[in-house]
Amino acid sequence: MPVLDLSTDVVTLTRQLVDIESVSRDEQAIADAVESALAALPHLTVTRRGHTLVARTELGRGSRVVIAGHLDTVPVNDNLPSRLDSSTGLLHGLGTCDMKGGDAVILKLAATLTAPVHDVTYVLYEAEEVESELNGLRLLSESDPDLLEADFAILMEPSNAVVEAGCQGTLRVEVRTTGERAHSARSWKGVNAIHAAGDVLDRLRSYVAREPEIDGLRYHEGLNAVFISGGVAGNVIPDECVVTVNYRFAPDRSEAEALAYVRDFFDGYDVTVTDTAPGAMPGLDRPAAKAFVEAVGGPDGTVNPKFGWTDVARFTVLGVPAVNYGPGDPSLAHTKEEHVPVEQIERCERQLRAWLEAPGAGA
Amino acid sequence: MPVLDLSTDVVTLTRQLVDIESVSRDEQAIADAVESALAALPHLTVTRRGHTLVARTELGRGSRVVIAGHLDTVPVNDNLPSRLDSSTGLLHGLGTCDMKGGDAVILKLAATLTAPVHDVTYVLYEAEEVESELNGLRLLSESDPDLLEADFAILMEPSNAVVEAGCQGTLRVEVRTTGERAHSARSWKGVNAIHAAGDVLDRLRSYVAREPEIDGLRYHEGLNAVFISGGVAGNVIPDECVVTVNYRFAPDRSEAEALAYVRDFFDGYDVTVTDTAPGAMPGLDRPAAKAFVEAVGGPDGTVNPKFGWTDVARFTVLGVPAVNYGPGDPSLAHTKEEHVPVEQIERCERQLRAWLEAPGAGA
Repeated sequence: MPVLDLSTDVVTLTRQLVDIESVSRDEQAIADAVESALAALPHLTVTRRGHTLVARTELGRGSRVVIAGHLDTVPVNDNLPSRLDSSTGLLHGLGTCDMKGGDAVILKLAATLTAPVHDVTYVLYEAEEVESELNGLRLLSESDPDLLEADFAILMEPSNAVVEAGCQGTLRVEVRTTGERAHSARSWKGVNAIHAAGDVLDRLRSYVAREPEIDGLRYHEGLNAVFISGGVAGNVIPDECVVTVNYRFAPDRSEAEALAYVRDFFDGYDVTVTDTAPGAMPGLDRPAAKAFVEAVGGPDGTVNPKFGWTDVARFTVLGVPAVNYGPGDPSLAHTKEEHVPVEQIERCERQLRAWLEAPGAGA
Repeated sequence: MPVLDLSTDVVTLTRQLVDIESVSRDEQAIADAVESALAALPHLTVTRRGHTLVARTELGRGSRVVIAGHLDTVPVNDNLPSRLDSSTGLLHGLGTCDMKGGDAVILKLAATLTAPVHDVTYVLYEAEEVESELNGLRLLSESDPDLLEADFAILMEPSNAVVEAGCQGTLRVEVRTTGERAHSARSWKGVNAIHAAGDVLDRLRSYVAREPEIDGLRYHEGLNAVFISGGVAGNVIPDECVVTVNYRFAPDRSEAEALAYVRDFFDGYDVTVTDTAPGAMPGLDRPAAKAFVEAVGGPDGTVNPKFGWTDVARFTVLGVPAVNYGPGDPSLAHTKEEHVPVEQIERCERQLRAWLEAPGAGA
């Protein structure tokens, strides 16, 4: 079994995590390694559900914060093992950015903060990069909601080590065109469902993204085909074509409103929902969010909107104010060239440590 | 092993053939049964190549005709076993139309015509419904071209028991669009290759079919997407989409001309040829074709153009004049509701028998 050394520095620990391959649905090895490392820490109470680990301090503080990250990655794309370029200070490899840099910060804090000013619940979970039915945080919120009770939550998704508030929702639908089969040598006797999908693609090409401003943050929606498939045989006019469309919507729209928009957009077609998750409003008016932003936000207090859907939305649904804050450029997530500046990993560790050690810092 | 009874009537024999499932690439059982039945006929010399059977009379006649049919079918579509509706005179089931009715006629003639006026080469071959690389008649024309030498050839593809001359060519190409991957939450950082395929489909929708008249027959071309596929993951802007297009072209165009047309049609896109086969000119000016049409064409001498590609084209390439003539409506081929009027099977047997028994009928 791979072993994690929590006594090493946070960058080396990131590399150890990256070098344990953990593509979604294949997280046994990394979860075992994390569980084993956490079990050696006497100041934490560890619970495992599937390949999701929860480690909690039980200090009787008047406040509790959750710090969470997912252990899985998108598929390998010729970008393992990790590679540290000391001339640029960049750590390259699958998961360096999304999001094992953040996971390493979580593990490092878990190992070393024996007396934080807030009780802390560290969560390292499975299956964030796939269908939400499998999402470890979702499963945990249903099986053990008490384990996630908190006054504030920090999700360490990549955000360039800047606080990102809110997140966009996501909706996936299948848009289906139908036709009538015929031999392709007598194509005029059939109706080509793939040709009919041309209109679906034309509508997508004419889409203009909404960019609403919410709590001072400018969001940016998107409506895209992510899959298309159709065809029966090389000599048959196809009678069905399915376009899978992903709508990313700003958090001022509910899931129901997002679906209504998409149904209207594809008016006249058969639209089937396959996956949906709500956005999260920035919530920057809440005291807990304000306090954290003041502590780590720097002199200018920079806060950005989160375009990508993250599990921040799950905390919002549970009534826990939550923000994204982690090392790495989110636009590098899911790219072959994924990397993270080691300085950001170190800065996140330093700022979170200072906040959790500062006497009187209210959650 | 299934057994074929060549002493039965041609309709019962059709049912026996239909009830031996023989989807392309799975023709062992039917080829074994046909080989065994032919081997029992002392007036024929039988050769097997793969799952293709050739049975020849060796009577020293001054002329030789080929009568050929394929043994394979398209995939099963809840249309087996065969079902005879005696009230309508229709035999239903996969392969009844395309083309085991014709195969039964071939086997029945092979079994009973011990002294035809022309020497006859009966050919029952594999893999007509898939890529031409696997086509049994093509393989035979390369391995044993002497076995196909003849003055005239009849291919018993469904033609409503009317002589069909010539056939259209077929060309399949992959038209590829490319883009740039990005996370779908920040879709404006990528380029969507599926959306780009909208233009390919728009061009196909605007296509107007050419309908040239050749030797008095009106052909009808077709240009259709038969497959489309694209997509990487549910949250990734796709960087490639492939549309497979099938062009059916009239026999006044060569394969090279057909490809030039398609390349021009999709100007600006990456076009890759996956499969191509030439058409065949009607050739109704040739004496052998004329003689056959006069013998079986009836008083009005009806001859139709063949829209679908058939192996008639292979005979043309070998320099053998050839026509399609067989029971069944070609527009029912490859449909779930495939069926054949038993009267047409019986008529084809009767007319071919009369032609091959008529003293002085020249090939």
